[in-house]
Amino acid sequence: MSLKRIVISLGDPNGIGPEIIIQVFSDRRMLEVATPVVVGSKSIFQFYAKALGASEGLFNFVSDVRKIQSGKLNVFLKLDEGFTPEPGKASADAGKMALKSLEEARALLAEQRDSEPGILITAPIDKSTIQSTDFSFPGHTEYLAKHFGENGESLMILMTDNLKIALVSGHIPVSQIAGYLSTEKIVRKIDQLNTSLQQDFRVRKPRIAVLGLNPHAGDQGLLGSEEKEIISPAIERAENSGILAYGPFAADGFFGAQRYQSFDAILAMYHDQGLAPFKALSFGNGVNYSAGLSIIRTSPDHGTAYDLAGTGNAHADSFRNALYVALDCAKNRLEYKQINADPLKRQKLPRK
Amino acid sequence: MSLKRIVISLGDPNGIGPEIIIQVFSDRRMLEVATPVVVGSKSIFQFYAKALGASEGLFNFVSDVRKIQSGKLNVFLKLDEGFTPEPGKASADAGKMALKSLEEARALLAEQRDSEPGILITAPIDKSTIQSTDFSFPGHTEYLAKHFGENGESLMILMTDNLKIALVSGHIPVSQIAGYLSTEKIVRKIDQLNTSLQQDFRVRKPRIAVLGLNPHAGDQGLLGSEEKEIISPAIERAENSGILAYGPFAADGFFGAQRYQSFDAILAMYHDQGLAPFKALSFGNGVNYSAGLSIIRTSPDHGTAYDLAGTGNAHADSFRNALYVALDCAKNRLEYKQINADPLKRQKLPRK
Repeated sequence: MSLKRIVISLGDPNGIGPEIIIQVFSDRRMLEVATPVVVGSKSIFQFYAKALGASEGLFNFVSDVRKIQSGKLNVFLKLDEGFTPEPGKASADAGKMALKSLEEARALLAEQRDSEPGILITAPIDKSTIQSTDFSFPGHTEYLAKHFGENGESLMILMTDNLKIALVSGHIPVSQIAGYLSTEKIVRKIDQLNTSLQQDFRVRKPRIAVLGLNPHAGDQGLLGSEEKEIISPAIERAENSGILAYGPFAADGFFGAQRYQSFDAILAMYHDQGLAPFKALSFGNGVNYSAGLSIIRTSPDHGTAYDLAGTGNAHADSFRNALYVALDCAKNRLEYKQINADPLKRQKLPRK
Repeated sequence: MSLKRIVISLGDPNGIGPEIIIQVFSDRRMLEVATPVVVGSKSIFQFYAKALGASEGLFNFVSDVRKIQSGKLNVFLKLDEGFTPEPGKASADAGKMALKSLEEARALLAEQRDSEPGILITAPIDKSTIQSTDFSFPGHTEYLAKHFGENGESLMILMTDNLKIALVSGHIPVSQIAGYLSTEKIVRKIDQLNTSLQQDFRVRKPRIAVLGLNPHAGDQGLLGSEEKEIISPAIERAENSGILAYGPFAADGFFGAQRYQSFDAILAMYHDQGLAPFKALSFGNGVNYSAGLSIIRTSPDHGTAYDLAGTGNAHADSFRNALYVALDCAKNRLEYKQINADPLKRQKLPRK
């Protein structure tokens, strides 16, 4: 059986992306679970390989996808070789490299014609240096939603083995959160989350907890009316469509009482409401999963970590987990499709 | 040496307040660290004592404060004896009891004429049933700020042994957070936090981490401008006044990387940003401390927990910790005052 191909975008070459990619695949056992193809350049990978003391034999530098080999860290040469990394430095040139790698990774996946979904793992970008006429998104999730999402939409799920948190609103200022929410949006996110839990994580009948927006989930309307006017109606509509949705729960009490252990996933209303407790609880092992795409996409849950780049102190745990989750989800989605496919041919009997 | 008196407000008599008070002081060793005086009624305490199998001898029911005894759980009889609790039920009558107990506790503390600060521990109220013409506050903190705060202000600090989080905005809807923040308010909160850490927690030179408002602390302005326009100037002003204030930090990454371990306290911009990760990390042992009051006030960090009331499953850990924290802070504040008092008389020598 040939190994599953995993496409990896480089991320910012001055961040910790390249070094954690090398770290992960320097453990050769990782090359027995999948065949990695990272879109990069010789100059970038040789720079970091030298610094980390990684063997030259680890790499397979290719300009032609047909030359990709299993058992190697394949570097698909699509970036300008003139770029030498400066670890820890935010720069426009590094931002251009990150964008080019992401675009070429996307192209590679778009060409893929398997029955199984393609897999993309993205290393962290610097959201301020990557902006350009070709990239005017607050992050990967929105960019990929445009290219691989149904109706241009996607759902960000942050996950560990026993905790999954999805967000209704993502990369928007706090001042815009309340205005952004609507019953329709929340219903759609509950639905996307439910579908992803079934297809990608093989939960038969997912139990979904929905958080409130305001402190104490509005405290019976004393601290805001969105719970009554927007969120509860959404939960009710989801319930009516057969989804096990519960809430709205006050975020602080919900995490304090460890109620999250009773649910398959949590839907938070905004970024920090979900991610601050998530990261407090996941201890650097979290994975970012983009649900609702035609491909499988995961990423580590950290940023470029410029302060660690080049120091050798970056941890690759989150990236390694991102790889395992991606492989599991790809397998689950395929099985789900097979199980739910009509096993019988359509009858074509002569009728009178 | 006589034991320090601790005034306790009953909280909602249909919530878990009365039972956790009885639980804590049923361990007689707790009566050797302080003399508790809870404002309540015979009917309420006999009801719960019977249910819990607590000894009658534990209590000293008094109508006159001069009859308070050490070694007993003193119940200061100021509530209508006609009320019988209905555990788990939100009711207007229970709300009235909670308010009356709080008001009488406040009066008792206002009369106290010690050199040491008075101590108040509040059991949880139901914020929707306690509202009346006498109580139109979102919570205890605001009510006590009005009566015991300098300029009517107070600062809520949620704490465990190794984590302290204070909030700039508290019980307000998410839609109002951004408009509520100002450089002046943040500077004042940093200052209050710094003072409390020095006086109440005996940290000589506190290191304070200030969180941003927006996701990723605004990501260089891509996700909101409050960090640049409001929060950073506040940190700078605090620094210029000699306070070790740092930030603004992105909330999720801050908790993820456990950076909170490097600071004496954290200032969060709003309720759930601070409290959701706090409660995720404090595992039911958190204490709510109200800084900036002339009295010492603590409370457990949970609510009435109607779902647990009367089941015997409520945990008293947070209330017990609230008591220890209050005693420590009272001692610290007194010592701080003594240490910083001018040890010498003012000179009055004849001058030519």
